[in-house]
Amino acid sequence: MTHVDPTVFSPSGVITLTTDFGHKDPFVGVMKGQVLRRFAHARLVDLTHEVLVHWPAEAGFWLGRSFRYFPTGTVHLAVVDPGVGSARDIAIVQAEGQVFLAPDNGLLAGVIERLRGPPVLRRLDESILPGLDVHRPSATFHGRDIFAPLAAELAAGRLAPAGLGPEVADLVPGWLEEPVVTATQVSGAVVTVDHFGNLVTNIDAALLPQAPHAVVRAGGHEIPLRRTYSDVRPGDYLALVNSFGVLEVARAEQSAALGLGLDRGAPVSVSARKGT
Amino acid sequence: MTHVDPTVFSPSGVITLTTDFGHKDPFVGVMKGQVLRRFAHARLVDLTHEVLVHWPAEAGFWLGRSFRYFPTGTVHLAVVDPGVGSARDIAIVQAEGQVFLAPDNGLLAGVIERLRGPPVLRRLDESILPGLDVHRPSATFHGRDIFAPLAAELAAGRLAPAGLGPEVADLVPGWLEEPVVTATQVSGAVVTVDHFGNLVTNIDAALLPQAPHAVVRAGGHEIPLRRTYSDVRPGDYLALVNSFGVLEVARAEQSAALGLGLDRGAPVSVSARKGT
Amino acid sequence: MTHVDPTVFSPSGVITLTTDFGHKDPFVGVMKGQVLRRFAHARLVDLTHEVLVHWPAEAGFWLGRSFRYFPTGTVHLAVVDPGVGSARDIAIVQAEGQVFLAPDNGLLAGVIERLRGPPVLRRLDESILPGLDVHRPSATFHGRDIFAPLAAELAAGRLAPAGLGPEVADLVPGWLEEPVVTATQVSGAVVTVDHFGNLVTNIDAALLPQAPHAVVRAGGHEIPLRRTYSDVRPGDYLALVNSFGVLEVARAEQSAALGLGLDRGAPVSVSARKGT
Repeated sequence: MTHVDPTVFSPSGVITLTTDFGHKDPFVGVMKGQVLRRFAHARLVDLTHEVLVHWPAEAGFWLGRSFRYFPTGTVHLAVVDPGVGSARDIAIVQAEGQVFLAPDNGLLAGVIERLRGPPVLRRLDESILPGLDVHRPSATFHGRDIFAPLAAELAAGRLAPAGLGPEVADLVPGWLEEPVVTATQVSGAVVTVDHFGNLVTNIDAALLPQAPHAVVRAGGHEIPLRRTYSDVRPGDYLALVNSFGVLEVARAEQSAALGLGLDRGAPVSVSARKGT
Repeated sequence: MTHVDPTVFSPSGVITLTTDFGHKDPFVGVMKGQVLRRFAHARLVDLTHEVLVHWPAEAGFWLGRSFRYFPTGTVHLAVVDPGVGSARDIAIVQAEGQVFLAPDNGLLAGVIERLRGPPVLRRLDESILPGLDVHRPSATFHGRDIFAPLAAELAAGRLAPAGLGPEVADLVPGWLEEPVVTATQVSGAVVTVDHFGNLVTNIDAALLPQAPHAVVRAGGHEIPLRRTYSDVRPGDYLALVNSFGVLEVARAEQSAALGLGLDRGAPVSVSARKGT
Repeated sequence: MTHVDPTVFSPSGVITLTTDFGHKDPFVGVMKGQVLRRFAHARLVDLTHEVLVHWPAEAGFWLGRSFRYFPTGTVHLAVVDPGVGSARDIAIVQAEGQVFLAPDNGLLAGVIERLRGPPVLRRLDESILPGLDVHRPSATFHGRDIFAPLAAELAAGRLAPAGLGPEVADLVPGWLEEPVVTATQVSGAVVTVDHFGNLVTNIDAALLPQAPHAVVRAGGHEIPLRRTYSDVRPGDYLALVNSFGVLEVARAEQSAALGLGLDRGAPVSVSARKGT
């Protein structure tokens, strides 16, 4: 597949980092060091490093819901990489003036499904690495040894996305099932539980029934759909379209996850009206 | 109330962030993205994102004890916002060459009580938002949709604090009770437990009795007042004026919180001498 | 000891921070504020703030294994400081174009043992502090009151390492025992458990027996030495030389620490072949 590239990439100097590396070890720090060695003016922003270990889907979900809050010209580096050191490829997505780098393990599916137009998809041609002075990467930390140098070169404007490798028709598909939509109901699942214990689902606001009495079901409860947390009394459950545009099950000033005993993967459904 | 504004705000480009958002989700990251979209040269510093969820008092306490360590011209953005999406206002405090933005829920009381002179207090005039290209903020994430753009405009020098809204005489009061001071005793409470398990109180050093044998009482123990942790043997309890100028109950090389079984809110008192 | 200084320090403006301060409190934030007050263009990178509380050895281990990923001219600030406020000195190591500042409590031993040539070692002459406008530091937070100002002055190029204090022959030695190497076996210990539950040891790759059937023993198990996590099936144990050049005991896509019930300090040995 070859098509005229509709995207332009004019680097802003901003690089975001999304990983499952946590905050305990210097893994993120040395990635930033590697970037700064190559591009002293990089502006590095941590998106999250607490993605569920080895679950690329959560990284892709958040990245797909977050990238538009960053400047045009941002490079997004996402490394959740259970297959590091194996034969897995490196994926590059170019879209809406931004570039995304990640292992080709389905992580970027969450970005691709959110795009307003067709992206340019590429796989890294590893033969370019020596020319970028990337030699003998470790078998277990491509974030530091391959991704960080590539992001730095892109953000510095010394490497164009087209220089990374050939266009491809498809990347490895994502791990998340799409919500199931019927005439009377939408059924999805909890993708992540946030710091507040809110249950964040994969049900996009656009899928919700346009009904005044829509009811959300989760953990055996019927939960009303409201606009914001303060629309119910502290301690009461509610569902709402959250600030990232997806259905969320919450408990005002408390943790819905603890209260309902639910976690990632729990089914959540929405019906047009009560008792249906 | 109108008075001549004694403060000057000349932005340094530094923005601090204080929230109860935690480190798990991309909430802080997208706030930074929003800032960088508007002001590429912002220098963003995390003060803390682990404020007790929905407790503005702790955010205000730390911010009031921390702001003087930042450059003149810093914008401090603090979002602990249980009332997000309700009718609560947005408060602006201008003092000592710095600007503070927070929900008007008492958060900034901890800053105001620490100031050396009268601040200028304002409430946001929301009608200015469209002129700043802030449209249709979400109901649940004003940190990203309102606060971050305002902080960016202030830090970039494109918006003066006076442009945010009218001066007001008072903001919503804080949630923390002041310590009670009598002739022989000062009684306060634990505001926060730090990473080391030190019990940090709301008792300012200036309130302590100037007596050579002052004794601190917490959790049923009498604890000696010392200068620093290494003034007692490892495992021994001590009280000290900590590096933020308040009384702290500590245990040398161990956790006083675990050892005494105390947490936020626990009463702590200081008497001029033992056995009183 | 006086010798011609073989090192040159040309500041890059980058400062790394390594502490046991955690992420809960504003301790790291105010250190950054102090730096920015003095040097607005500092680029601050967190290496880790989750070093085991009061255990300098882990900070030194990670710093020694991480510093080469940062630009020449970086200032590394490491504060794990159980003796803060006591008579302990402040140590400065200058090597390979970088400068390291830490309490003189053995922390920097992990850096010194990794250097390719002899470093210049210094102890801070505290009489220089007033001339740098560092007055009356607190007894309990030298990271903010002494280390951050020094790092800022060094990174800004206004202070040379030689201006910090006299050269010394030795610093306080480190806390970690070296691995024991015999003709048939290398015996070391777990230094840290990373976010993934991998058991990171102090056994450098250079110490490993060059044998095709080397076997690693940890927690009563015999574990094969492999190249990367994906060389075994999910759930299987393996040992490998990790991306920081030391032996690591891991469990593919799971936590070796949980699976084996091991933590810091656990003995790990490597034999040239099975059953020896």
